[in-house]
Amino acid sequence: DVAKDVDERLIEKFLSEVDNIQIQENLRELTKVPHMATTAGDEQTVQLMLKRWQDPETGLDQAWREEYMVYLSFPDPKKPNKVTVVSPSDEVLYTAREKEKTYPSDQDDPEVVQPYAAYSPAGHPKGKLVYANQGKPNDYQLLNNTVDLRGTIAITRYGGAGRGAKAINAAPYGVIGVLVYTDPLDINDGLMSDINETYPHSWYMPPSGVERGSFNGQFGDMLTPYLAAKEETFRIPVEDITGIPPIPIQPIGFEDAYRLICELGGEAAPTQWQGAFNCTYNFGPGFRNPSAFNNSDVKLDIFNYEEKKNSSNVMGVIKGSVEPDRYVIYGNHRDSWVHGAIDPSSGTSVMLELTRVLGKMVKQGKWRPRRSIIFGSWGAEEFGLIGSAEYTEQYFTKLSERTVAYINVDIAVFANATLRASGMPSLQNIIFKAAKQVNAPGLDSTSVYDNWIKYSNRTSQANGLIPNVGYLSGAGSDYAAFVHYLGITSMDISYTYDRSKTNARIYPAYHTAYDTFDYASKFIDPGFVSHQAIARTAGNVLIRLADSLIVPLNCSDYAETLEDYLNTAVTLYQHQLQERNISMEPLKRAVASFRSAATHLDQVIRSSDLANETPLTVRRINDQLMLLDRAFLDPLAFPDKYAYRHVIWASSSAGKPTFPGLADAFANTESQSSAWDKVHYHLSVLSQAIEGAAHTLGDVI
Amino acid sequence: DVAKDVDERLIEKFLSEVDNIQIQENLRELTKVPHMATTAGDEQTVQLMLKRWQDPETGLDQAWREEYMVYLSFPDPKKPNKVTVVSPSDEVLYTAREKEKTYPSDQDDPEVVQPYAAYSPAGHPKGKLVYANQGKPNDYQLLNNTVDLRGTIAITRYGGAGRGAKAINAAPYGVIGVLVYTDPLDINDGLMSDINETYPHSWYMPPSGVERGSFNGQFGDMLTPYLAAKEETFRIPVEDITGIPPIPIQPIGFEDAYRLICELGGEAAPTQWQGAFNCTYNFGPGFRNPSAFNNSDVKLDIFNYEEKKNSSNVMGVIKGSVEPDRYVIYGNHRDSWVHGAIDPSSGTSVMLELTRVLGKMVKQGKWRPRRSIIFGSWGAEEFGLIGSAEYTEQYFTKLSERTVAYINVDIAVFANATLRASGMPSLQNIIFKAAKQVNAPGLDSTSVYDNWIKYSNRTSQANGLIPNVGYLSGAGSDYAAFVHYLGITSMDISYTYDRSKTNARIYPAYHTAYDTFDYASKFIDPGFVSHQAIARTAGNVLIRLADSLIVPLNCSDYAETLEDYLNTAVTLYQHQLQERNISMEPLKRAVASFRSAATHLDQVIRSSDLANETPLTVRRINDQLMLLDRAFLDPLAFPDKYAYRHVIWASSSAGKPTFPGLADAFANTESQSSAWDKVHYHLSVLSQAIEGAAHTLGDVI
Ligand SMILES: [Ca+2]
Ligand SMILES: [Ca+2]
Ligand SMILES: [Zn+2]
Ligand SMILES: [Zn+2]
Ligand SMILES: [Zn+2]
Ligand SMILES: [Zn+2]
Repeated sequence: DVAKDVDERLIEKFLSEVDNIQIQENLRELTKVPHMATTAGDEQTVQLMLKRWQDPETGLDQAWREEYMVYLSFPDPKKPNKVTVVSPSDEVLYTAREKEKTYPSDQDDPEVVQPYAAYSPAGHPKGKLVYANQGKPNDYQLLNNTVDLRGTIAITRYGGAGRGAKAINAAPYGVIGVLVYTDPLDINDGLMSDINETYPHSWYMPPSGVERGSFNGQFGDMLTPYLAAKEETFRIPVEDITGIPPIPIQPIGFEDAYRLICELGGEAAPTQWQGAFNCTYNFGPGFRNPSAFNNSDVKLDIFNYEEKKNSSNVMGVIKGSVEPDRYVIYGNHRDSWVHGAIDPSSGTSVMLELTRVLGKMVKQGKWRPRRSIIFGSWGAEEFGLIGSAEYTEQYFTKLSERTVAYINVDIAVFANATLRASGMPSLQNIIFKAAKQVNAPGLDSTSVYDNWIKYSNRTSQANGLIPNVGYLSGAGSDYAAFVHYLGITSMDISYTYDRSKTNARIYPAYHTAYDTFDYASKFIDPGFVSHQAIARTAGNVLIRLADSLIVPLNCSDYAETLEDYLNTAVTLYQHQLQERNISMEPLKRAVASFRSAATHLDQVIRSSDLANETPLTVRRINDQLMLLDRAFLDPLAFPDKYAYRHVIWASSSAGKPTFPGLADAFANTESQSSAWDKVHYHLSVLSQAIEGAAHTLGDVI
Repeated sequence: DVAKDVDERLIEKFLSEVDNIQIQENLRELTKVPHMATTAGDEQTVQLMLKRWQDPETGLDQAWREEYMVYLSFPDPKKPNKVTVVSPSDEVLYTAREKEKTYPSDQDDPEVVQPYAAYSPAGHPKGKLVYANQGKPNDYQLLNNTVDLRGTIAITRYGGAGRGAKAINAAPYGVIGVLVYTDPLDINDGLMSDINETYPHSWYMPPSGVERGSFNGQFGDMLTPYLAAKEETFRIPVEDITGIPPIPIQPIGFEDAYRLICELGGEAAPTQWQGAFNCTYNFGPGFRNPSAFNNSDVKLDIFNYEEKKNSSNVMGVIKGSVEPDRYVIYGNHRDSWVHGAIDPSSGTSVMLELTRVLGKMVKQGKWRPRRSIIFGSWGAEEFGLIGSAEYTEQYFTKLSERTVAYINVDIAVFANATLRASGMPSLQNIIFKAAKQVNAPGLDSTSVYDNWIKYSNRTSQANGLIPNVGYLSGAGSDYAAFVHYLGITSMDISYTYDRSKTNARIYPAYHTAYDTFDYASKFIDPGFVSHQAIARTAGNVLIRLADSLIVPLNCSDYAETLEDYLNTAVTLYQHQLQERNISMEPLKRAVASFRSAATHLDQVIRSSDLANETPLTVRRINDQLMLLDRAFLDPLAFPDKYAYRHVIWASSSAGKPTFPGLADAFANTESQSSAWDKVHYHLSVLSQAIEGAAHTLGDVI
């Protein structure tokens, strides 16, 4: 029992029991009403999760809720935000839509929140409109060469820069308000008409669709950095919050954006700034002469307010039989912006199907995992990954010490073409194994793996042609706190697009009132077979992580990534570093040490007769594998990036496929020569972290 | 074998084999020549350690050296530092001694380093002398009320403030140079005469004795914060170093201090400022009129220079049989200021005797510990705990993950009256157990424990009357990086004074050229029986930590300390906190959770049939105990205190027996009302850390 390895028949049984219709019905139930964080609809989903996870037939060992009091931002239902065109005589010439248009039904629900930019300040800026492309720093810089931006309202399109950045980048130029919309070029492959082109005729965004979102730049509750947001926890003063829009910003539909942009005067914007509208996108400032809006201003009336509210995570566990003190965590957020059929309920439907199948095996006494499995249904992700981040703050030590891996499945299905996976390289191997055992949806005799490799692949020195697994260097979903703050080996998977068929930034109903069961079942995954494939693949990985005698993490695949990063760094930086007498040798030696320790550990694992080893020998190897990512944490390496501590995967603005701190430091040397010290510092931080990781993989003494 | 507990017969055998004469001979060999860090004498001790630890009959499994390139400070042998009295016509009226007086022999060695203040800048300040007591902030403040300190040289006595602080506190008042000496009141119980009172007639400091020391304020190599000081490691610019004297400072003997102080003019200093000299200590500025020095200045000519040099740790291991990936670390520094018989060679002599006895058992195949034992002979401690700190930086992750405890024995014997122990409360229990099994030196039928409890005791709610174990909240020796940076359960023990017989701040030859084998064997521990008692006690603890089936750390004793701290905090702060609506309830709840989790874990341990439990169950409990202190780490809680991360034991200037961050934050509220936020912050940090620790002690899932 102590020496038992994963049972392949159990995996087969699991795969056969995962039911697409159950997933479909889960989704139907989860999306009955809008369930934005902390609303009554959210509470309904809390109750649903608890009911399922406490079910005596198919539930988990235990389930409970954990509350955090977190800082959220909402529009005022009594004073809706307004965007208007106002003539010099204060006549309102045009009013943008306040709510998305209703097609069949769901959009009518009174609980559909008005489109807004969470954490945008309230305010009533009025000024001449300008078009600022994607609101990137160089967009405003270029625009400012032609137009005096002081006192203007900038209209921007989604993409290129973070949501909040569009306002943060604007303010230094004197811009006083920002609009943001989704250009049909970026989301609808250019299509615009709701007569026959957009939802409900296709998956494309209707003209009145608006992407909501959080406009803050960091993750976790903003008032309680590094502290779980309990009622009496110390909170920083609201005025100390950084990374949120300093000026009002509001998202609108492209229907309204069309009216505003196509009336703009001034010079024509550059070609790359042009979108899908059948007009020239001009810079402004202000409207063309002649035009209905000539001489008029655009006015924003934003009534957003902030409030501390209780948000719940729902937690559930299956206690491990042999190593209950080792955790495999599987999670997804529960809160949506509106009905959230795809984001996040596709993932939640999958999670509920996993827990049904696994819970039933547990309740029937047929199975209990070797290690404990913790399920997390996180709250308030849409406002900045808040529930998962607070959870990692509260349980920091315990989770750091005991967690083998974290699996995140947020949007389970973006589209039904192929698997997409991101994660630490040490998990690649087990994702491949799982993907080979699952049939690709709609393709009888092709595995998810064989289908995937056709869409996205690379050649690995050790493994030959393999599917391409991405990295988790951003904070796109709830894996962020696990990866960056805790240094826990993590992954995120979903089914996604055929990129030869669409250029959509994301599935077009994302964060709109059209992300409904109707939409999901008609246009994203009819029959829910892609959901089923994700449930099978993620569940397969989950069972292997929980049940394998040796934790199925491959440190040699990590070595390969470090070598790739090193090679890129040498190519990009070595010459200039040599000129400044900064040696890359310590980093090269560290990566070589890591490779050699990884090879050695792999050899130890291969040559051990594991079933007959003492349990403590197996545990020792498992601890080496489990704790590998922890060695890459440095809580002081990125003082300006909240909760980013993983020196290999931290976010980076340099856009180079190499060590993030080094790349960003190097990029800064172009503007400040004192930045060379920081380059040298990051080289030392990296060398020490990688050597430290190698020490943990080598012989234990 | 996997379920074997500590073998009491083996402990008895160990105790019987620890030989006082071996310790004596170790000391004789270690102190043949001065062995200041990185000198030829230091290298001789490196070779000695390696030879002993690599001995085929009595050595360890393996021993090796590890080098760091560290930033040190030395006087210039060609241009000795000078302290003179200079008349207005530039005539030198008086010159302080450059070297300590030779009595029997040892002080003649050309390798005896001139007394100096390591990290004092070079410089040649000249000015009127003032007497500034101990150089504390309020000493200078008080003196400044009477005397214009600009351009003066301040003479201070050791004690009350850190060495470097005496200069750091002085500079803001315009003081340009500082002298420091040891007043006979503070070290010699008032005695002063080398005719018949001081060494070589007794243990007291001769008139020319000078305490050397490091005058920096943090630990570890100052140029490489958080990074191991390898050759190519990034180093901060020298001008970014903080915490070192901004103005020249030099230590002198009380013989010279007497001449200077007793000639001072000005008002008489307050009673508490008076020392043992048979004159009134006046403030100055300058000398009395009439006096031989009237109108003269004091001049410092300091030629110290800084240099990066290679310093070695010598490491040795005995590999564990069952859990080689669990480490018990035992260490002491190897470097001294001069011959360093007591500091540190008393501890090194003890360590060598331990490794001889244990090594022999290992080499003879009679014993191998369950867990691995690592011995560290640290370099460059005297310059700021450098070797041990660099070691913890280099091996941070591995040591954090695997170290059960750290035992530090630096000065093994200050005096031969009683045991003194400091450490985490969880170790108290095992120290008591060991101390009960060792005979007190010179007392046939009394144990070290029974003798100890007579000298220092307290009443514990759970344990009744017990010896008082101190805390490791400072950075007095190499435990600092283990306690504060790594959060490893640590202890420090020695034999020490009967405080009813002496008021000496420390043994009087401390850091002088008189700390020799002759001194140690005649005045500190004739017969080396106190050394033997320390070797037996520390070795007993070491074997128990390495061999016990359940790690002998008691979490309920930790709970008692947290409750004491909490009670003090409530008494001192609750009233004022309530007035500001800051609740102490979360802290109270956290301490209660900790207590209840500790009680529960104790109960689990007591009620388990451990010998028949699965090895993984035992390991799980051991991991809970081993990692307990790690839960108290917060790398961001003390941004101004280098490498202090342990929220229970961090240093504190408030001087209250309670949580240090809270106490210091509260103390600041007296001067700045904005400091209340910091109080609230520290309450939340503490509550979360203690709750987090409780989570790790509770049921694992
Ligand atoms: Ca928080
Ligand atoms: Ca260092
Ligand atoms: Zn999502
Ligand atoms: Zn989302
Ligand atoms: Zn010492
Ligand atoms: Zn010392």
